[in-house]
Amino acid sequence: MTMLVTGWVALDDIETPFGRTERSLGGSATPAALAGALFTDVRILAVVGEDFPDELRRKLEHPRIDTAGIKTIEGGKTSVWGARYSYDMNSRDTWYPELGVSIEHLPPVLPEWRDSTVACLAAGLPSYQRDLIASLDAPKVTLVDTIKMFIDENPDDLRETMRLADFVTLNESEAREFAKMPSIARAGRSLVSDGVKTVIIKLGEFGAALISDGEYFVAPGYPLEEVVDPTGAGDSFAGAFLGYLDSVNQVTPGEIRRAMIYGSTVASFQVEGFGPSRLLTLTREEVDARYRKFRELTHFEVDG
Amino acid sequence: MTMLVTGWVALDDIETPFGRTERSLGGSATPAALAGALFTDVRILAVVGEDFPDELRRKLEHPRIDTAGIKTIEGGKTSVWGARYSYDMNSRDTWYPELGVSIEHLPPVLPEWRDSTVACLAAGLPSYQRDLIASLDAPKVTLVDTIKMFIDENPDDLRETMRLADFVTLNESEAREFAKMPSIARAGRSLVSDGVKTVIIKLGEFGAALISDGEYFVAPGYPLEEVVDPTGAGDSFAGAFLGYLDSVNQVTPGEIRRAMIYGSTVASFQVEGFGPSRLLTLTREEVDARYRKFRELTHFEVDG
Repeated sequence: MTMLVTGWVALDDIETPFGRTERSLGGSATPAALAGALFTDVRILAVVGEDFPDELRRKLEHPRIDTAGIKTIEGGKTSVWGARYSYDMNSRDTWYPELGVSIEHLPPVLPEWRDSTVACLAAGLPSYQRDLIASLDAPKVTLVDTIKMFIDENPDDLRETMRLADFVTLNESEAREFAKMPSIARAGRSLVSDGVKTVIIKLGEFGAALISDGEYFVAPGYPLEEVVDPTGAGDSFAGAFLGYLDSVNQVTPGEIRRAMIYGSTVASFQVEGFGPSRLLTLTREEVDARYRKFRELTHFEVDG
Repeated sequence: MTMLVTGWVALDDIETPFGRTERSLGGSATPAALAGALFTDVRILAVVGEDFPDELRRKLEHPRIDTAGIKTIEGGKTSVWGARYSYDMNSRDTWYPELGVSIEHLPPVLPEWRDSTVACLAAGLPSYQRDLIASLDAPKVTLVDTIKMFIDENPDDLRETMRLADFVTLNESEAREFAKMPSIARAGRSLVSDGVKTVIIKLGEFGAALISDGEYFVAPGYPLEEVVDPTGAGDSFAGAFLGYLDSVNQVTPGEIRRAMIYGSTVASFQVEGFGPSRLLTLTREEVDARYRKFRELTHFEVDG
């Protein structure tokens, strides 16, 4: 059982009320891979420029992560993502991408990686995500994430990709914008009637909702005392969600719900540090303890 | 078992993307009372002006609501609340109160109502809320709600009242403002360490969180397809929460969690119509069906 992760391995400039980082390890694939590695073996497929520091590359060296798919483009520049958050960290104030080598140089899947059992396609070019799904032998589960940029640029192209995936993750504002619906429930249902198999709408600190033809599941947010940096929360959710599903090796409604809670749990750790720093030291034991706590915090019986 | 409800019985001017109403039945006590009457007998204590239409008074006539405590002030004007909501109905764009008779004329509890078993003090002058709690014989449970106006005007006075109540409800932005804390969890804990017994932070469409010294419970929002008007959601939550607790006649952690879900469930009906219009026809059977649905939508088992 192995999870293929694609997306950006990038440099992040982040500023929150609690501090700032410059050129730190970031991107969409990075937190997804680190989150997934808590549950299963992970392979990362991404491109970086010559300027990508060895020191950051070493941070990705993890017993369960194969980085052979991180290709360095000679003469190229690594993508940089800048984000600034104000006091209410649910929304970004400013956001600027310098896409670097990541858009022109799309790494094909390594031949020996075609047997990956699940694929987590963090934000990336929709046509590339489509090609990648097609190039795998027989993935059990695929998940596609995206960002506003691709919704704005070519929604029809994105829609085509979304229909191919088993799970699509969108954050709340993206879902409302993409579906042109004000309510989360209606946005979700509209995407499903448009051919998306299952959509997961990420609600930031308020949790996540999963909507498919026959299923609706809502999970509240884990109550965090302190959010240091929300960057990458959604990617770590996706990586943990899919990594957990890969590890249990079956996709039942019960397992999908548990995967949602594992995703939320790992995301709640991710936001405790700048970028993916918290994930670098996080253990499965810590995750399981908070997962059980999550249940305690949310459980109720219908009757007394 | 009888629930005393105080607060505004008022006239609402509401404008949402879906329509508008003028001088419709509103106020804080109105949805709280109608919500509570789904579970227990209710007594309303409020003042209105001479201009309060008989037609609206008749809407409050309900087999389980005693309106003998709604006093008409001769020559006075009924309070009017105006609210306008934009596309994202989580926040009000504009909001104006014309307080009418409700601030100078505070109705003392009717002597025969001192035996009320629970008291739901919807938004009102904090010193009046305090006097009212003191004037009851032996209420089993008291709940105090408030609004930004009272937090801004005299936070110390409000704090004194909050410490007297068994439950304090605040919406998210009020809790952050009052506690001067950015995170919901920290704002809640800060209020508790400041002497509030249990605080319920209302998260609008994202549910509610309950925080006390030994308990933390988070409930997601019920996934609604269409929100017509969010006015009064918090008041209907409070009325249903307390009405349910009154009806089961015990205040255990399990019953408090069920009360949170009943509160959220009734609030999810409240927002389906303008003002409290949906509550006027709502039945306990409809509430129980959605309550069970709520469980289905949120339940997960820790292990497979």
